Amino acid sequence: MDFDTIAAISTPPGEGAIAIIRLSGDEAIQIADRIFYAKKRLNDAESHTIQYGHIKEEDETIEEVMVSVMRAPRTFTREDVVEINCHGGIVSVNRVLQLLLKSGARLAEPGEFTKRAFLNGRIDLSQAEAVMDLIRAKTDRAMGVALKQMDGNLSRLIRHLRQEILDALAQVEVNIDYPEYDDVEEMTVRMLLEKTHLVKASVNELLKTASEGKILREGLATAIIGRPNVGKSSLLNQLIQEDKAIVTDIAGTTRDIIEEYVNVRGVPLRLIDTAGIRETEDIVEKIGVERSRKALAEADFLLLVLNQNEPLTKEDEALFEAARDTRFVVVLNKTDLERKIDLDEVLRLANGEPVVETSMLTDGGIRELEEAIKTLFFTGEIDAGDATYVSNVRHIALLHQAIEALDAVISGVETGMPVDIVQIDMTRAWDLLGEITGDSVQDELLDQLFNQFCLGK
Amino acid sequence: MDFDTIAAISTPPGEGAIAIIRLSGDEAIQIADRIFYAKKRLNDAESHTIQYGHIKEEDETIEEVMVSVMRAPRTFTREDVVEINCHGGIVSVNRVLQLLLKSGARLAEPGEFTKRAFLNGRIDLSQAEAVMDLIRAKTDRAMGVALKQMDGNLSRLIRHLRQEILDALAQVEVNIDYPEYDDVEEMTVRMLLEKTHLVKASVNELLKTASEGKILREGLATAIIGRPNVGKSSLLNQLIQEDKAIVTDIAGTTRDIIEEYVNVRGVPLRLIDTAGIRETEDIVEKIGVERSRKALAEADFLLLVLNQNEPLTKEDEALFEAARDTRFVVVLNKTDLERKIDLDEVLRLANGEPVVETSMLTDGGIRELEEAIKTLFFTGEIDAGDATYVSNVRHIALLHQAIEALDAVISGVETGMPVDIVQIDMTRAWDLLGEITGDSVQDELLDQLFNQFCLGK
Repeated sequence: MDFDTIAAISTPPGEGAIAIIRLSGDEAIQIADRIFYAKKRLNDAESHTIQYGHIKEEDETIEEVMVSVMRAPRTFTREDVVEINCHGGIVSVNRVLQLLLKSGARLAEPGEFTKRAFLNGRIDLSQAEAVMDLIRAKTDRAMGVALKQMDGNLSRLIRHLRQEILDALAQVEVNIDYPEYDDVEEMTVRMLLEKTHLVKASVNELLKTASEGKILREGLATAIIGRPNVGKSSLLNQLIQEDKAIVTDIAGTTRDIIEEYVNVRGVPLRLIDTAGIRETEDIVEKIGVERSRKALAEADFLLLVLNQNEPLTKEDEALFEAARDTRFVVVLNKTDLERKIDLDEVLRLANGEPVVETSMLTDGGIRELEEAIKTLFFTGEIDAGDATYVSNVRHIALLHQAIEALDAVISGVETGMPVDIVQIDMTRAWDLLGEITGDSVQDELLDQLFNQFCLGK
Repeated sequence: MDFDTIAAISTPPGEGAIAIIRLSGDEAIQIADRIFYAKKRLNDAESHTIQYGHIKEEDETIEEVMVSVMRAPRTFTREDVVEINCHGGIVSVNRVLQLLLKSGARLAEPGEFTKRAFLNGRIDLSQAEAVMDLIRAKTDRAMGVALKQMDGNLSRLIRHLRQEILDALAQVEVNIDYPEYDDVEEMTVRMLLEKTHLVKASVNELLKTASEGKILREGLATAIIGRPNVGKSSLLNQLIQEDKAIVTDIAGTTRDIIEEYVNVRGVPLRLIDTAGIRETEDIVEKIGVERSRKALAEADFLLLVLNQNEPLTKEDEALFEAARDTRFVVVLNKTDLERKIDLDEVLRLANGEPVVETSMLTDGGIRELEEAIKTLFFTGEIDAGDATYVSNVRHIALLHQAIEALDAVISGVETGMPVDIVQIDMTRAWDLLGEITGDSVQDELLDQLFNQFCLGK
């Protein structure tokens, strides 16, 4: 396909040793040549080589750079790609980008490079989505899932299922064309039912991996709640210390949307309102339970902290009440002190959710707590390294819709509906699966999808 | 020189489209080859070429990468350099780095790549420092200064001055060796005095650029102070909107150390406690003047905001009092409303500092305010594009010490001290200037200097 030439800064915002500006398109090399000064023109450079030189605006030198020239089709986008490797200052990198835009490039939209890789047929849609998952991965396991998907594991499985459906549809057509045999209709129906059950079983198998996959991919929104002074802040610090929190600075970058992740045995916990927790210990009186309630509303998972050195209070009970619809682990803290809490009452309130004893003073119980969290969310079902699985909400929704279509096929056949009506549902299942790989997909969907990518990718 | 092989992530922390891990040292290529899988070994690749392949740990694929191979000496460090260009996820990039460390590389210290460029003689010390200045530059002008210094402008000037000193010292030696001529001593003294005045004049010329240079390089720590509801927050937003604030996320990265810069006609204002200002309008009663006082203590420059629709209050006067030792501009805000403030009194309190009228409602006065700020700090002395100037605190301190040494030479000669005593001071001036370029410099100083760099540079 033929596109204009796009440019963007492809490294994270902020000061760093290296910043990269990426160009892609038919004119990538010519546009870069307009601002690049060195012994050799980029146009004369061989593919996949690096040139040293300077970026100049009129007579003024703006940057000292290394420029990579990569000619189509052996590139990320399958177009000519130029990467300008700068010294990593915010001002100079922006200035070089501005120069490129003045010289004929257009500022890339978020995800536009990857979109081109898709549109030019280098990768399919689920692989493109995996590229972003890989970047956002918070744990090794999440990374593993993304890499397999990027490698085309999911795509191959989906294509296989679509082929099965297509075979069945073709067989139906053939049988309709040769109605001279007596048992044709019966055979057609039996074959169709068999194939449909087969495909449905595979889709269901895949959906089994969805809830864990989704947690791996997006992290588990986790709030630490509890009365003032029960040790929420120390618990937070312990978790962070043990596992080295990953602080993510989402593109756009204001201080309000920094997210903290803790990797607990492969489970990425996305911590909600950690700033709040940190403050809480200082300005205890004002905030307390009120703030906890707010964090609680956003959470998929709670760490409900109690001080076992004090009897249960009304506030504690209110927290249990508020936590009723969420999964949680009760953390009985301060085991270094005498137990004054009524354990039976705690177990009753916990109502089957795990209770773990900890002491932030002696580090006791942190490992047990982590184990409890892991057990709560990972059944071990998908621990077998080679399983293909599904983690993306969009894919999960499509698989569920495909199941519905397949169910319609089954009940259609069973209630003796005409074959051409059943065919419609079967075709719908085929289309829905195709949306996962992008084989059947609309433009708006593409725009929406790639807009979630980071700039420069 | 011979060093071990170092590795580090050279892109800013955070999610991005591309992350780069840089290796430098004799074994850079071999170590990368241990974890890189592709058609061609990196060892067989030509210099300055790019290879596509995968990073694997045992049988598990960890990343899809483009690897640049650059062989000594045409590299940033003058050693073999390998750059591994990854997909930009925090987890996967860290994992690749860990693999390299397991395979024989050592984690680089901050600035260690640039330090090697210095130790291997590719750049001198002031050029190395300019690399970092370039990365940290907040405005085009600051960038220009850094680029010139990187290009060796300052070094050339300093080397020239050192040569002048050396010539004088040599002449003194020669004259001492030939004492048979009558007027030798007189000639020696006259020549020495002349040269010393000459060098001193040049150093003074350079120092004239220091205060502006320092502001350009480090930004002007600026606090916006004023009573609640006078319009501090709107002023902040206006400045940011007009000039697009640069938000810097310093390495290490917690939300506490994000700094905001506003580029006001080339003057980089580093805004202090902008979060505080933003909050202030909400929780006005509690904070107010108290908080302003704190910001004030850190500031080099103040924007003192008054509401000209209200008479001056005691708090306003207290702010003037507190601002006495700092440069400031008085912002008379809300000119869209009736004037109720006593302008004469304001002018008296301002005591010669500029007073600017603004209206955040109509955007009136913002340009005038910016002009006032620029005039306050830039005399225009160094606006002439080609001037070499000095911006680094370390350099400024060394130049001042050199002036002292030169003064000692002058007074030594004038008071008739023996020439060999005078020689000592002259040599000291030579040494001090040499510390700027790194021609005379100690190991500890080097460690300290390069440690201020960012990781991976």
